[in-house]
Amino acid sequence: MESYVTDDIIYALATGWVKSALAVIRISGEGCIDALASRFSRPEALRQAPSSTLVHGLLVSEKKEEIDEVVVGVYRGTHGYTGEEALEISCHGSLVGLKKILGLCNGLGFRPAAGGEFTYRAFLHGRMDLTQSEAVAELIDSQSDVSQSLALKRLNGALKNRLLALREQFLTVMATIEVQLDYSEDEVEEFTFPTKALQEIADSMQKIASTYQVGKLYGEGAKIVLAGSTNVGKSSLFNLLLRQQRSIVSPLAGTTRDYIQETCVIEGIPVRLFDTAGLRESQDEVEEEGVRRTRALIKEADLVVYLLDEGEQPPPCDKKTLIVTSKSDIRQSSGQTGLCISSVTGEGVELLLKTIGDHLKENLPSVDDQEVVIQSLRQHDLLINSEKAIESALALQNQGVPLDIIASVLQDGLQSLGEITGAVTAEDILQKIFSNFCVGK
Amino acid sequence: MESYVTDDIIYALATGWVKSALAVIRISGEGCIDALASRFSRPEALRQAPSSTLVHGLLVSEKKEEIDEVVVGVYRGTHGYTGEEALEISCHGSLVGLKKILGLCNGLGFRPAAGGEFTYRAFLHGRMDLTQSEAVAELIDSQSDVSQSLALKRLNGALKNRLLALREQFLTVMATIEVQLDYSEDEVEEFTFPTKALQEIADSMQKIASTYQVGKLYGEGAKIVLAGSTNVGKSSLFNLLLRQQRSIVSPLAGTTRDYIQETCVIEGIPVRLFDTAGLRESQDEVEEEGVRRTRALIKEADLVVYLLDEGEQPPPCDKKTLIVTSKSDIRQSSGQTGLCISSVTGEGVELLLKTIGDHLKENLPSVDDQEVVIQSLRQHDLLINSEKAIESALALQNQGVPLDIIASVLQDGLQSLGEITGAVTAEDILQKIFSNFCVGK
Repeated sequence: MESYVTDDIIYALATGWVKSALAVIRISGEGCIDALASRFSRPEALRQAPSSTLVHGLLVSEKKEEIDEVVVGVYRGTHGYTGEEALEISCHGSLVGLKKILGLCNGLGFRPAAGGEFTYRAFLHGRMDLTQSEAVAELIDSQSDVSQSLALKRLNGALKNRLLALREQFLTVMATIEVQLDYSEDEVEEFTFPTKALQEIADSMQKIASTYQVGKLYGEGAKIVLAGSTNVGKSSLFNLLLRQQRSIVSPLAGTTRDYIQETCVIEGIPVRLFDTAGLRESQDEVEEEGVRRTRALIKEADLVVYLLDEGEQPPPCDKKTLIVTSKSDIRQSSGQTGLCISSVTGEGVELLLKTIGDHLKENLPSVDDQEVVIQSLRQHDLLINSEKAIESALALQNQGVPLDIIASVLQDGLQSLGEITGAVTAEDILQKIFSNFCVGK
Repeated sequence: MESYVTDDIIYALATGWVKSALAVIRISGEGCIDALASRFSRPEALRQAPSSTLVHGLLVSEKKEEIDEVVVGVYRGTHGYTGEEALEISCHGSLVGLKKILGLCNGLGFRPAAGGEFTYRAFLHGRMDLTQSEAVAELIDSQSDVSQSLALKRLNGALKNRLLALREQFLTVMATIEVQLDYSEDEVEEFTFPTKALQEIADSMQKIASTYQVGKLYGEGAKIVLAGSTNVGKSSLFNLLLRQQRSIVSPLAGTTRDYIQETCVIEGIPVRLFDTAGLRESQDEVEEEGVRRTRALIKEADLVVYLLDEGEQPPPCDKKTLIVTSKSDIRQSSGQTGLCISSVTGEGVELLLKTIGDHLKENLPSVDDQEVVIQSLRQHDLLINSEKAIESALALQNQGVPLDIIASVLQDGLQSLGEITGAVTAEDILQKIFSNFCVGK
């Protein structure tokens, strides 16, 4: 992606691309009010509207054909989301009408915004730091109550404040070291290397970084694949978990060919659930293609629920596979061990859900209510970098390495920490962050 | 559906139920500003906001947990869409966050709006007539440039004005007849029954009513089913028309089982296109179920494109079936007549699209640019009722039936005409109209 240009007018549909009562098109950049007024039935009303007011009127084409009846929200100066002159057009949620309005924006010389470009401008104009910017995308993407609340906390600055405090601590320690370096050895008495203070900072970083696994699970969710031989009841279980008749179920082997994907929430975790073609050798080319796709899905899965007929031998499994025996209602399953379920009676399904949840949460650190949880791999990696720099410095100190070398290692750590909030950040890193946003933010 | 209550506060998500940068929740009803202020981080700012302004803040739960950062549009008195006190909350387009905000509205005692309830209130408060109200839904539902423009015209009053003018004409004619009835025969000289004027009114009604077929085709679109024996290339043609590899294609008969539906535009007409399981007797139960579903789709289709292998006999067809021979690239098709296509080379596809378009537009009246086009069956039927009443009256006049009887027939016609705009309309009819709207409008 090219660098964002920041002195032109950008536009984007900010609401969903679906038919609806209303839709909102967002525009930002100096001069956008005047420009849109030339295509508005009440140009003077728009030009003279104070900031944070709403203006009702018609959008018209260059040839004065009416395009839609709209209400325009006006933001002047630094009042809007982006911290620059901006407009929000509230129009009818007609896909055809939206295309016409987007065409009008284009015709006025506005540029379609790239993903995250509105938030990028907000960051540039100092309206938020990078952790807050990332929290915008994380909030919108949130798929569970937990991750939405965590993201809103970060948006409101919880993580930013935590990191700023940590940086302040770090800077204070660095200052004592710099003082030591600035004076010749004989001038300074009793310098004790601040091992304890640095270790505390490193521990705090480690603790925040460790919350990433929690944030990721509740934020991005897990991919669970139902797999097994043909005709073991995968589609029945799939329908049961979704509470709808989504997959065709039949007593015949090989009913499902195209894989089917739906989402649900299991134990508070957002889940993408896949029903797949049963694994068997087949002469049927369509079924073979289906089986190929199943194997690809299994590779990418966070958890595979492998359904087994009674008596069937489980396949060689890795840790991410959960073996479950199906059709417990029609079995004489004496001696059957492990998880047994019946999609007919629902027997065992509660336990299966609980087990799936436990499996996904296995080895995650516990997080208390007051803890800031992160969900960004970027933030995680920078925290780890910063922490490792401190650990290295402590190791070097033990080895009796000169203080100026240790100080430069610590400076690297400080740099990593600063990059998290954007206090120090290269342009290319910014591009990478904002390009993951949905368009319109 | 029960009658709408009109003195409480209603709310609804007005934008699409999809993840997006922004979403809008609409609230309407006296007291809604005060009520929401109790869950707002800046209650006084909201309470004191003038009409048509925007207020930034946080929504908080009863327990003061932060729910989302929002901008609230405030409408007082008669300034909003509904013609009563109203709010529009612009929030993050997170599905989880939206659920929380909708829950907050519910917790405040607001009632979830039924489809069309906002527009119903706008109608009740005299902000639009019924043809304009219906145009709101038609505009949002529009699937082509043509139908969007036609609906916007109606929303801006084109149909309303046309019908009001027609009603005025009708009333004038009625007045001359009433005058005749009010006086005894010997008092009035030279009464000529206004045959010509009534015929003109009837013709105008007929003309507007006839545009319904055009409005319906461009507005609602057509359902086209690809059918035929197995392995004639239905899925290949389907993918070609959609320009994507949507259906699995294989050389084996019976590849498609679940039918697949996608939308596209053919010759300006919005089309729902169905790829179906091939029609054959099968021992395979899954395939049999697929074939059953195919037959059901064919029944409901506006047009069936029946693909034929060369040499294969066409099935007994009705007028809505278009016979097409497939795989023209690998045929030695000497003497093959009718439409031939190749999904491999694309041969014949242009002609197929044109033929489909012609087929769908067959027998439609021509409509010039200035004509108001209707898209509502209700409006169509009322126009026809009104026109028929006039035709009846003219026939009765020819039979020498007394004028007072003729006048009462004409009154029925006038009543039907009035119902179109809502000048005279029963409550139950209103319910029926607005219940077809999407929620949030």
